[in-house]
Amino acid sequence: MEKFPAPQFLRNDKARYGGLCCIWTRHASAIIAVPRFSPATPMPPASKNLPKDSRQDWSERLTALAGAISDADDGAHDINHLHRVWQAARILLDDYPAANALVVQAACYLHDLVNLPKDDPQRHLASRQAAQLARRHLQQLDFPADQLDAVAHAIEAHSFSAGIAPTTIEAQIVQDADRLDALGAVGLARLFYTAGRMGSRLAHADDARATHRALDDRRYALDHIACKLETLPATMQTDAGRRLGERRVQWLRDFRTRFLAEWEGA
Amino acid sequence: MEKFPAPQFLRNDKARYGGLCCIWTRHASAIIAVPRFSPATPMPPASKNLPKDSRQDWSERLTALAGAISDADDGAHDINHLHRVWQAARILLDDYPAANALVVQAACYLHDLVNLPKDDPQRHLASRQAAQLARRHLQQLDFPADQLDAVAHAIEAHSFSAGIAPTTIEAQIVQDADRLDALGAVGLARLFYTAGRMGSRLAHADDARATHRALDDRRYALDHIACKLETLPATMQTDAGRRLGERRVQWLRDFRTRFLAEWEGA
Repeated sequence: MEKFPAPQFLRNDKARYGGLCCIWTRHASAIIAVPRFSPATPMPPASKNLPKDSRQDWSERLTALAGAISDADDGAHDINHLHRVWQAARILLDDYPAANALVVQAACYLHDLVNLPKDDPQRHLASRQAAQLARRHLQQLDFPADQLDAVAHAIEAHSFSAGIAPTTIEAQIVQDADRLDALGAVGLARLFYTAGRMGSRLAHADDARATHRALDDRRYALDHIACKLETLPATMQTDAGRRLGERRVQWLRDFRTRFLAEWEGA
Repeated sequence: MEKFPAPQFLRNDKARYGGLCCIWTRHASAIIAVPRFSPATPMPPASKNLPKDSRQDWSERLTALAGAISDADDGAHDINHLHRVWQAARILLDDYPAANALVVQAACYLHDLVNLPKDDPQRHLASRQAAQLARRHLQQLDFPADQLDAVAHAIEAHSFSAGIAPTTIEAQIVQDADRLDALGAVGLARLFYTAGRMGSRLAHADDARATHRALDDRRYALDHIACKLETLPATMQTDAGRRLGERRVQWLRDFRTRFLAEWEGA
């Protein structure tokens, strides 16, 4: 197996792909609960000695890779998001015993390798770029070559803005799992956290319900529930994803009702 | 009446007080639903012509002043926060017909004039600085001189970190009203919004419940509920504030339970 690419390689990727964030912070060790690389340390040698086909081995390699290259600075898209997407995917996998769990797991951990801001004109291409980059990283790890296309497709198709239909059950599961993490209580926390990073308002001052104006979720965080989150269950590819999604959206609706009552002073 | 201080005056205050944000953005007109000053425009002449003792007049003057000097860039502390604090204060005022509503209103709209970051060593002094600054602004507006001390005390005492006990019913109402806005659905949105601005994590990766570690709400947003928000109802000075606060804290506890279930993959 070739050595895992050194950080310099990652930095070159960042320049090339324009949106990959590879940030080493003093808080990193507290945020990420998986083995991490430091700028001076290549792939930990221990994992090289594990058999390649071991699930445990691949779990360790994928979380280590994701931990090293995920955006530790963005609490809505850090390694914990990747853990939760894989966690949700495992629930969905229960209904599809024939699906390739390793493909799903690799795509879950690498789907956000390139995450461009909402207003970046290249945003619709980010998941394609992530798929290319994931392919290169997985090749470096000696990932089974015959499964690379399946992982790349699942990564390409996960994104809302890419507009690529998932054609395999693995890609469908990854897409549903990623969308589930935008819903419910954690999804709500991520929504307002991201609004804080973007400098949006919490809601429109006088017309938070958007009765007399168009929804605008770049300016008003609350609008994101009606603009996008409520629409997600209908896009779910699996029955379990849709069921879970609908439950979480109902909770978001209840939150919105309560928020509006407080906002409007009812 | 003297002319409202020109923006240069505000900028001098910013330098002097070190934390006052007076930001003019292209979104300002959409965010703030009250008359605003632009950097080139002094106090709108119309309000000069209204009788000084008119409640309507003071509402307009105070919201205009607050709109001009509040931090339009921080969705958790913008003019809408000030509107909500005054809205909550009006509910509390119902139980205290003898309280001076104008003092309460002025303190609600001017309490955040100086809002220093959580890690600023001067943070415990911010509310005293805000009180001094409010006094100067109100003097410029010919606010009743015999009520300036009461407004200044309510502003000084509103802050958690200042550690000043509110000794008047007006100050007690302002403190309760401000704390109510940290609770419930809007409080939750403000919590995660602020976490995004500060770059905290949503929660601790492996021990989100803080079973085996100390709570740390600067690093983990979720910790803020147990660290501070749950403690607020017991600090409330009015019965209605405590009742409302307890109801909103219960909702936050329910949120936390749901968040943890999703975070831990239950």
